[in-house]
Amino acid sequence: MAKRRKTSVPQSEVPAVRGNLLSDKALRTKEAPISYLMAVALARPELISLAAGFVDNETLPTQDAAEVFHEILSDPAAGRAALQYGTTAGYLPLRQLLLDRFCRREAVSAADLNLSVDDLIVTSGSQQLLYLISSVLVNPGDIVITARPTYFVYGGVLQVFGASVAGIDVDDEGIRADLLDRRLAELDAAGQLGRVKILYFCSYFDNPTGLTVSAARRREIMDVVTRWRQKQRFYVLEDAAYRDLAVDAAGDLPSLKTLDPRNELVILAQTFSKPLAPGLKTGYGFLPKSLIGPVLDQKGSHDFGSANLCQHFIYRMLTSGRADRHIEKLRAAYRAKRDAMLSALAEHFADLVGSGVSWTRPGGGLYVWLTLPEGIDTGFGGSLFQRCLEGGVLYVPGNCCFAEEPGVEAPRNHMRLSFGVPSVEENRLGIQRLSQAVHEELR
Amino acid sequence: MAKRRKTSVPQSEVPAVRGNLLSDKALRTKEAPISYLMAVALARPELISLAAGFVDNETLPTQDAAEVFHEILSDPAAGRAALQYGTTAGYLPLRQLLLDRFCRREAVSAADLNLSVDDLIVTSGSQQLLYLISSVLVNPGDIVITARPTYFVYGGVLQVFGASVAGIDVDDEGIRADLLDRRLAELDAAGQLGRVKILYFCSYFDNPTGLTVSAARRREIMDVVTRWRQKQRFYVLEDAAYRDLAVDAAGDLPSLKTLDPRNELVILAQTFSKPLAPGLKTGYGFLPKSLIGPVLDQKGSHDFGSANLCQHFIYRMLTSGRADRHIEKLRAAYRAKRDAMLSALAEHFADLVGSGVSWTRPGGGLYVWLTLPEGIDTGFGGSLFQRCLEGGVLYVPGNCCFAEEPGVEAPRNHMRLSFGVPSVEENRLGIQRLSQAVHEELR
Repeated sequence: MAKRRKTSVPQSEVPAVRGNLLSDKALRTKEAPISYLMAVALARPELISLAAGFVDNETLPTQDAAEVFHEILSDPAAGRAALQYGTTAGYLPLRQLLLDRFCRREAVSAADLNLSVDDLIVTSGSQQLLYLISSVLVNPGDIVITARPTYFVYGGVLQVFGASVAGIDVDDEGIRADLLDRRLAELDAAGQLGRVKILYFCSYFDNPTGLTVSAARRREIMDVVTRWRQKQRFYVLEDAAYRDLAVDAAGDLPSLKTLDPRNELVILAQTFSKPLAPGLKTGYGFLPKSLIGPVLDQKGSHDFGSANLCQHFIYRMLTSGRADRHIEKLRAAYRAKRDAMLSALAEHFADLVGSGVSWTRPGGGLYVWLTLPEGIDTGFGGSLFQRCLEGGVLYVPGNCCFAEEPGVEAPRNHMRLSFGVPSVEENRLGIQRLSQAVHEELR
Repeated sequence: MAKRRKTSVPQSEVPAVRGNLLSDKALRTKEAPISYLMAVALARPELISLAAGFVDNETLPTQDAAEVFHEILSDPAAGRAALQYGTTAGYLPLRQLLLDRFCRREAVSAADLNLSVDDLIVTSGSQQLLYLISSVLVNPGDIVITARPTYFVYGGVLQVFGASVAGIDVDDEGIRADLLDRRLAELDAAGQLGRVKILYFCSYFDNPTGLTVSAARRREIMDVVTRWRQKQRFYVLEDAAYRDLAVDAAGDLPSLKTLDPRNELVILAQTFSKPLAPGLKTGYGFLPKSLIGPVLDQKGSHDFGSANLCQHFIYRMLTSGRADRHIEKLRAAYRAKRDAMLSALAEHFADLVGSGVSWTRPGGGLYVWLTLPEGIDTGFGGSLFQRCLEGGVLYVPGNCCFAEEPGVEAPRNHMRLSFGVPSVEENRLGIQRLSQAVHEELR
């Protein structure tokens, strides 16, 4: 796609336009590196893609959707309500239901967390919420602290707003609270604390590492944040996009949002793209009261409300119990795929475990993070990526998941592997091909 | 709504947050004045609203939608494709179809206008396209030229980006080309020409005036633009949201896009909200080649593509012929409403025609622009608005439709009246109530 776009713009015209006319925001924005991967995947459909973060095609709820749309549209009043304009904040009964479900899941009352239905908004996927939050908080040069590695599409948003990214390393329990504390102290010492606006990370089955932030770590992070927030009132942006895709019985952890009893510091972002269907492009968020007005004002200028029809559909998927039954099926499907990938990794990389090869063992979500010996370059330009293309397997180079930071070199020996799209068999075969390429590379 | 939002934010917290933490963009953005109207309408459903720009509820295509969703979702492959992720630019078969339909309607070939399917993008309503275009072109302090009055929601977008608005008066043929030329010359003389980025107006059945830019005026505008564009390469943003809602037989005029044979200067924005259903929140645009890359990069950071399911639905509404049949029905429904409002105006305002009262006679769309004698204040704070509330009718004060311009006072003696939502009978009754209030005010 990158290719096509470039060739379709007359080359003589680009520099003049870029130089003259485009906004600073447009000039800051680079094409996402992932476009290259998508172009490769489209051009060579025979490849097994362990790259795409799409959801499993077979599990998409066509039958449920057929029934629910029939229910809505065969009732003229309900049908018209769904086809008419909605409100900027989203369909009120859906927002009320989402609040109720959240409270039930977390075993809290809305009052415990100073939450009301007015603190929820529905967005065009959780991506739009990430954009809106950044839009109301970040001026060029402001600082956003993220996990390191991090969700790369959010890295693109930060580029749009000219944010300076401060990455904090993760361990098996998630983003490290001690390093966060140290970094905030360094920023304070450098007179930069006032520029810190957001701390962003995925709290469940992280994209790209697959790791979940442990219960203890959640509390440690909130302790650090609460302490520093007396000097600079930044927000925690908790991305819980994968929360519903737990595949192990271990059970659900309370969200960081539950550790914010005054509803003043955590934004919780969620989506229906993963647990229901990406084609709905519907997400939602719980926002601190101080941000609701500014975010709604921005959303008003974007689109004055996300597709109302999709919101009515989701409401009925939830109230009819279909959504919960569907999520159970999804979990079983992803469990089989996750197991296939992990057992294939254990089988085909066993001999390299002593030589710097390791991988995460996610309890859900879509991703495994594979680490190869230092010195191996997994990037697009490296020989391993080419070997894998020739061998018929595609992955996301780990360096795509590190935001640009001044003076920090992104490590190049990682990969993000997604088990969501390929079948069980393709997961096995994909890892086998990957292993062969890695073994050749190490020879 | 304005009310609720304000009371839900602890007052003590607001100034500190506003002052400290929010981005410049958030600080520039004011709550849309229209929120007050929506709050009134919600609180007092017994009022006849000639204010809402919603579409006629009765005509929403529930039966067609039921059939099309059944068609898509009863075929597992088609259903999965619609429920899966799409692409940032939008569903390719839909974009191809929209290009073909555009060419047929305009009686041109795509090559005549240097257009290809890559120059089309699907957005979350045409509103998102207006936002994206402004986002890639406008830095704070840049100049956007608009008709005067203008679509007020776009005024909100311009506020977000800190644009300086230069309004050009309109006459019965639309935005005046001679005044546009003069304004550009003044800006040039003041050394400000380099800040001009966009010329924006509605070309068909304008919001708020109901006026269509005449064929001759289209050519005059393009002549002026082409001449000045040799010094400053700004773009024409042609908002054709109401084009499909023509109710007179007079026929369709060629869009300004057809006067841009090299596809380098006109952005044509369209939507399915008016001709199909607002609940789909789907619009689209034809873009100059130089803007496609930058706009897609921004859209990638917003949402990486609008709801795919809605796009698959629209594609089948179009290919099955249902959309065209539906639009014919819509036109008949709006014709009856337009006629009811115009004949009620003729009846109830006849005695005031000699005393400075006049109104537009739109050939389509949703709006009539009513002018009252100078000195009458139609604003929220004025006595006429209160009288109308008491009399049971709601309108949009004309001053909401004038962007803030330094040194320019918005006239306060206009109203935007919408005939789209009320029934034929309510249109008549609404105008009767309005007339009574105006007569009392003039007494």
